[in-house]
Amino acid sequence: MNGAYHYNKLENFCGSLFTKAGVPEQEAKLVAESLVQADLRGVDSHGVIRMDVYLKRLEAGMVTVGGGMNAVSDGPVTLLDGANHFGAVIGSRALEIVMEGTKRNGVSVVGVKGSNHFGTCSYYLLKAVREDMILIVLSNASQTMPPTGGVRPFIGTNPFSVGVPAGKYEPFILDMATSVVARGKIIAAAQRGETIPIGWAIDKHGHATTDADAALEGSVLPVGGAKGYGISLFVDIMSGVLTGAGFGKYVNNMYENWEEAQNVGHFFIGLDIARFMPVDAFKERMDRYFDELKAVPRAPGVLEILIPGELEHRLAQERMLRGIVLPGKVEEELTKWARRYGLDLSEALMNPASTA
Amino acid sequence: MNGAYHYNKLENFCGSLFTKAGVPEQEAKLVAESLVQADLRGVDSHGVIRMDVYLKRLEAGMVTVGGGMNAVSDGPVTLLDGANHFGAVIGSRALEIVMEGTKRNGVSVVGVKGSNHFGTCSYYLLKAVREDMILIVLSNASQTMPPTGGVRPFIGTNPFSVGVPAGKYEPFILDMATSVVARGKIIAAAQRGETIPIGWAIDKHGHATTDADAALEGSVLPVGGAKGYGISLFVDIMSGVLTGAGFGKYVNNMYENWEEAQNVGHFFIGLDIARFMPVDAFKERMDRYFDELKAVPRAPGVLEILIPGELEHRLAQERMLRGIVLPGKVEEELTKWARRYGLDLSEALMNPASTA
Ligand SMILES: NC(=O)c1ccc[n+]([C@@H]2O[C@H](COP(=O)([O-])OP(=O)(O)OC[C@H]3O[C@@H](n4cnc5c(N)ncnc54)[C@H](O)[C@@H]3O)[C@@H](O)[C@H]2O)c1
Ligand SMILES: NC(=O)c1ccc[n+]([C@@H]2O[C@H](COP(=O)([O-])OP(=O)(O)OC[C@H]3O[C@@H](n4cnc5c(N)ncnc54)[C@H](O)[C@@H]3O)[C@@H](O)[C@H]2O)c1
Repeated sequence: MNGAYHYNKLENFCGSLFTKAGVPEQEAKLVAESLVQADLRGVDSHGVIRMDVYLKRLEAGMVTVGGGMNAVSDGPVTLLDGANHFGAVIGSRALEIVMEGTKRNGVSVVGVKGSNHFGTCSYYLLKAVREDMILIVLSNASQTMPPTGGVRPFIGTNPFSVGVPAGKYEPFILDMATSVVARGKIIAAAQRGETIPIGWAIDKHGHATTDADAALEGSVLPVGGAKGYGISLFVDIMSGVLTGAGFGKYVNNMYENWEEAQNVGHFFIGLDIARFMPVDAFKERMDRYFDELKAVPRAPGVLEILIPGELEHRLAQERMLRGIVLPGKVEEELTKWARRYGLDLSEALMNPASTA
Repeated sequence: MNGAYHYNKLENFCGSLFTKAGVPEQEAKLVAESLVQADLRGVDSHGVIRMDVYLKRLEAGMVTVGGGMNAVSDGPVTLLDGANHFGAVIGSRALEIVMEGTKRNGVSVVGVKGSNHFGTCSYYLLKAVREDMILIVLSNASQTMPPTGGVRPFIGTNPFSVGVPAGKYEPFILDMATSVVARGKIIAAAQRGETIPIGWAIDKHGHATTDADAALEGSVLPVGGAKGYGISLFVDIMSGVLTGAGFGKYVNNMYENWEEAQNVGHFFIGLDIARFMPVDAFKERMDRYFDELKAVPRAPGVLEILIPGELEHRLAQERMLRGIVLPGKVEEELTKWARRYGLDLSEALMNPASTA
């Protein structure tokens, strides 16, 4: 269609697709919101590009809808069994629990099992920092990266993330795959038919490759060698081994395994800033820190030192105004689903009339 | 002297130097143990190589000894003011608090301010995993790394670390500087008069360098580009901004600033495995995970896939038997201190008689 989509309309469109497919409205809203927010923030790899596989898994009975999660708390520690709902639904429940627990106890941890791909970690971080909390969110993912010295996938690109509120600055939102790049970026490159830089991945024989398809059959590489490998193991241990979820090969690939639930695990750690110092004093310290960071002399050609999350925030502001442009392949997929459920994707365009 | 030192004797020697210099025996023991353990584990950059600067700071009145730390707890959250004792003394107190709190509450966090360089994080992790706990330890450090896009130091090599017990396997001990390499390795290279690989650091003008001395005047680089930069900021925020300790330029350099205390900050997070599942079941899962990890097909020339901490554990076993070899420069420094306090470094050799 070659137009830009309005984030709110796109969210409603995706939500409607889910409800037509049988997802209760409240759950549909969370999943749609998490995907469109990723597109807004420029994390296109985790945006509505995932609608297709989410809907396919739903139709294949690989995802549960309509309640039935079970949380068991023992003081500040909670174990949540997500009962195979959509990841964003389970992640949102974990977020509620961790936020409530953090307010009550100063610190709260929630281990989650029985979950699915939950999108970007930022989706949860952004809601927590608004309540003056520090939140750490970890998630494992199906095997895509080799350990240092290995040539076959063993760990996922297991994201590590932290959100911290500031005062005059936007919150610190560090949200990173433990790979050199998120595997979703390689998926996106493959969908756009583009090559990838050397160093991102190896093919299935263990050789360096610039071919996105070959990389998807092979392995993405951990960031920073053994250090990224170690952090990825850590994330898998916390999210999977400790919670009772899958870990290593027991986290099923959502694109390849159509017989079993994914059994992804997550781990949330919340901290109440007010237990350490008055929130205002903390925010002043954050602002002073970032003022000084911004003043560091820059390398030639660098316009500004960035804070983690800053670029994504600016993209979101821009895309709220100018709209979200989707790759042709994603538009085609969404159009197919729209036809099936009697919806019209073009209604989500910024300016539907001019392009109808 | 060109001999190897016995770890136990070396620890006693270092402990005696500290007590002669006025440190209470119990505190001296902790600092000496933490340094010699680093040498045992092959982390020579954080071993007795630091005796010289520790003793100099003590004599210069830059470090306090003999009690007076203050801890304030509110449920599972504790704030510890280290009152400028040696880092290993303060870190050990934080460890006691976090271990006790973790047993009581399932999770416990300790934020530490008013501290000094505390050696390696592993020193604390190893004690916690023995009690079936998961421990995360963070510490900030004085400015040595530029932010991504910057050319002057702003963040420290702020270590991030996690310890997790296993069953038949040695514990998972991920203990990493957020730099490409620990700055201590560049210090060690400079002390040995060796060059360093390209990519480790930039000189003070922002150019890549292989000269260890020029690197020490310039900046070590964060691991994995913006991701290591982001993790280092995170560690500084938790250890420094949140605890009330120094952060960024407010963490004083122990080699350069002889007028102010360092005001280093640390952050400890403990988790009780038993609140998630029976400890035996957890250890079986860890062992299964590592069995499968060890079986990953390897790249040509790679003999074994390693678990974080495994190499260091093996080195420690070996060095317990064969002794610790110290660089000539460190031997000279220790000999000077020994002379001053009426001690004899050669008595710490594996076989003092044969080399006397
Ligand atoms: N659910 C899953 O299974 C899964 C798996 C992997 C990744 N993800 C998601 O993928 C997303 C993308 O991950 P990624 O690692 O490709 O992101 P990225 O490399 O684009 O960014 C990683 C982090 O570094 C920051 N950053 C990047 N450049 C910077 C600079 N110059 N200065 C300061 N900060 C900078 C970003 O703001 C971000 O916080 C994340 O949202 C993650 O949660 C999800
Ligand atoms: N107190 C301070 O201010 C401070 C500052 C920086 C670093 N440090 C300490 O310096 C020490 C060294 O840090 P470093 O980053 O240079 O260590 P490193 O790079 O040698 O190792 C980092 C981690 O990766 C693991 N590892 C390395 N290679 C591996 C492989 N092939 N397979 C699996 N695991 C592997 C190690 O076991 C270790 O856990 C740490 O103990 C850290 O606590 C302290």
